[in-house]
Amino acid sequence: MTIEECAAYLAARDDFLIVSHIRPDGDTLCSGAALCSALRRAGKTAYVYPNPELIDRYRSFITPWQAPAGFVPRVVVTADIADTQLIPPAVTRPIDLVIDHHPSNTHFGANCLVQPERSSCGELVLDVIRALGGGVTQPEADLLYIAVSTDTGCFMYANTNAGTFRAAAALLELGACSRDLNTLFFRTISRARMALEGMIYSGLRYFRDGQVTAALVTLDMMAKSGATENDSEDLAGLAGKAEGSLLGITIRETAPGRCKISLRSHPEINCTEICAMFGGGGHAMAAGCTVDLPPEQALQSILKAVDEKWPRS
Amino acid sequence: MTIEECAAYLAARDDFLIVSHIRPDGDTLCSGAALCSALRRAGKTAYVYPNPELIDRYRSFITPWQAPAGFVPRVVVTADIADTQLIPPAVTRPIDLVIDHHPSNTHFGANCLVQPERSSCGELVLDVIRALGGGVTQPEADLLYIAVSTDTGCFMYANTNAGTFRAAAALLELGACSRDLNTLFFRTISRARMALEGMIYSGLRYFRDGQVTAALVTLDMMAKSGATENDSEDLAGLAGKAEGSLLGITIRETAPGRCKISLRSHPEINCTEICAMFGGGGHAMAAGCTVDLPPEQALQSILKAVDEKWPRS
Repeated sequence: MTIEECAAYLAARDDFLIVSHIRPDGDTLCSGAALCSALRRAGKTAYVYPNPELIDRYRSFITPWQAPAGFVPRVVVTADIADTQLIPPAVTRPIDLVIDHHPSNTHFGANCLVQPERSSCGELVLDVIRALGGGVTQPEADLLYIAVSTDTGCFMYANTNAGTFRAAAALLELGACSRDLNTLFFRTISRARMALEGMIYSGLRYFRDGQVTAALVTLDMMAKSGATENDSEDLAGLAGKAEGSLLGITIRETAPGRCKISLRSHPEINCTEICAMFGGGGHAMAAGCTVDLPPEQALQSILKAVDEKWPRS
Repeated sequence: MTIEECAAYLAARDDFLIVSHIRPDGDTLCSGAALCSALRRAGKTAYVYPNPELIDRYRSFITPWQAPAGFVPRVVVTADIADTQLIPPAVTRPIDLVIDHHPSNTHFGANCLVQPERSSCGELVLDVIRALGGGVTQPEADLLYIAVSTDTGCFMYANTNAGTFRAAAALLELGACSRDLNTLFFRTISRARMALEGMIYSGLRYFRDGQVTAALVTLDMMAKSGATENDSEDLAGLAGKAEGSLLGITIRETAPGRCKISLRSHPEINCTEICAMFGGGGHAMAAGCTVDLPPEQALQSILKAVDEKWPRS
C-alpha cells in the first residue's frame, strides 16, 4: 500500500481503533495518537487502544485519545507493530491496516503500509496525515516529534537518515516544542534510573576482547535501585556504548527464570539471525527475544548463539 | 555581510589562515577545516591555525589542514569566535573576516558574517561553501556534520531549529557518515569512563529534597576505574541530570587534600556567587572553584555556601 492509498483507505472508513505494541515505546504510542487526532479532525470516530503497559512519561500525551470501555471498532489499525506476537493479547480482532517501518514486518494485516527505509513509524504517519489533506496540528507535531526522536535516540541512532532530518525540520516548523520535549525525554534521568545505570555500568561484562559486551538487569537490581518499568526504557542501548563493542547484549530478567534478551549491533553482525534462534526478531542491528532461563544461563545461551552466527575470525 | 558577500570576498582573495578559539570544540575546529578544504578546491592557499589545545578525538580530522611553520597569511578568518579574548594569544594579526553564530559576537573583524539564528558555525559555513559555487565534498560534509552535531549535543540542545535539521539532511545527502561519526562522538564510552560513571551514578548524593545533587569523584574512584584525564571530559554535567535537580555539584579530588568543585545550575541559582566565596568564578549557570580540603569536607563547605547564597524557602 502507498501513502496515498493508505490515506484513501482511512478517508473511506470510520470507527478506528489504533493499537500500540506490547512493551510500548514512544514511537508506537505517539505515532498512533497523532494518527488518531488527525482522523478525528477528518470527522471520524477514532481511539487508541488503552495499552495496559503505558509508561508514565507518555501518559499525559496518550490518555486523551484512549478508547472508552465498550468501544467497538470497525477498523483496527496497528502502529509500529512488526508481528502479531507484539499485539497486546487483549486485542483479538483481525487487523485491518498495518502501518509500520520494521523490515521484519510480517504483513499480517488485510492492508499494509510498511516502509522499512523510515526511521520510525512517526516519520511514516507524518506523511499519512499530510496525505489526509487536513494539515498537521501543533499537538500532532509534538506527538510525531516524540515518536521520531525517541525511536532515533534523538537523531543519534543509525536509523536516522536525510528523510528523518527533513521530517524533523517539518515538525519544528509545524510547532513541535522540541526543547521541552528533549528536556523531558533525553536530558533528565530519574533517581532510580540513575542508580540502575550505575549498577549496569559497574557490572558490564566484556567478551571476545571487548567486541561483545553484556549488561545483566536482574530483578534484584531493579528492586535495589527502586526502578520500575517507567525507569527502564531503552536500557538495551547501554551495553553497546562501551568503546570497542560491536555487539551489545542486554539480559533483562522479567520474572524468575525468564529473561528478555535485546541485541544492538554494528552492521557486521545480524541481530535478527541470532534472535531468530530463540523465536525472536527485529531489525538487523537491533533485535530481541525471550528465553525461559535465569539471567546467567540466558547470557551463556545467547553468547553461544552469537559464536555460532558470528564465528570468531 | 551576507553569505553571498562573504563568498565573493573569499573568492577575490588568497593565502588564508582560519583560526579556531581557545579551548576549541568541534564546531570551531571542524567548520574552519571544512572552509579551508573548500577554499583549496577553489584554487586558494588556505590553512587552519594549529591550535595548541586541539583535543585528541578531533586530531585526525584537523591535522591535515594545519598551517606549516612560517606560513604568512594575507587574510585571517575566525570561525566560531565571539570575541577577541577567545582568539589564541599567539594569533596577533588583525582579523579580516569573522564567521560566527554567537549572539554575543562583538563584530571585531574588518568584515563580519554573523548569524545568531544558526545552531552552529558549521551550519553557516555550509552555506558559505555552497555560495563559493564548487559544491561540497564528502570530507567537508563529514567535517560540517561534526561541527553541527557536536554544537547541538546531537540535535538535543535548545539551539537546534528547523534550519539545523535541514542542514543535517543536506549533509547526509552529501555523504556525511553520520553513523560512524555519531558512534565516535556520542555513542562510545571508554571502559574506564563507563566504570567511573557507574560509580558516580551509584554514589550520587541528594540534598534539599533532591533539588541539590552531588557527585564525588575521588582519586580512589579514578584508580579503581582506570580513568585518566582523557576519560574525564564533562564529568560536571552528570550530577545535574538527576530528575528534580536544580543544582548539580561535582567534587573532583585532584590531589590528596585538594578538590576542584564544579557547579551546574538552573537559572534560579547563581553558581558564580557561590564559587566566588572560594575564589572561583565562571558563568551564572556553570562555575567552579578549588578548595584545599578532602572530598567530604569540600562537599560540606560547598553545601553550606549553597544554603547561604540560595536559602531554603
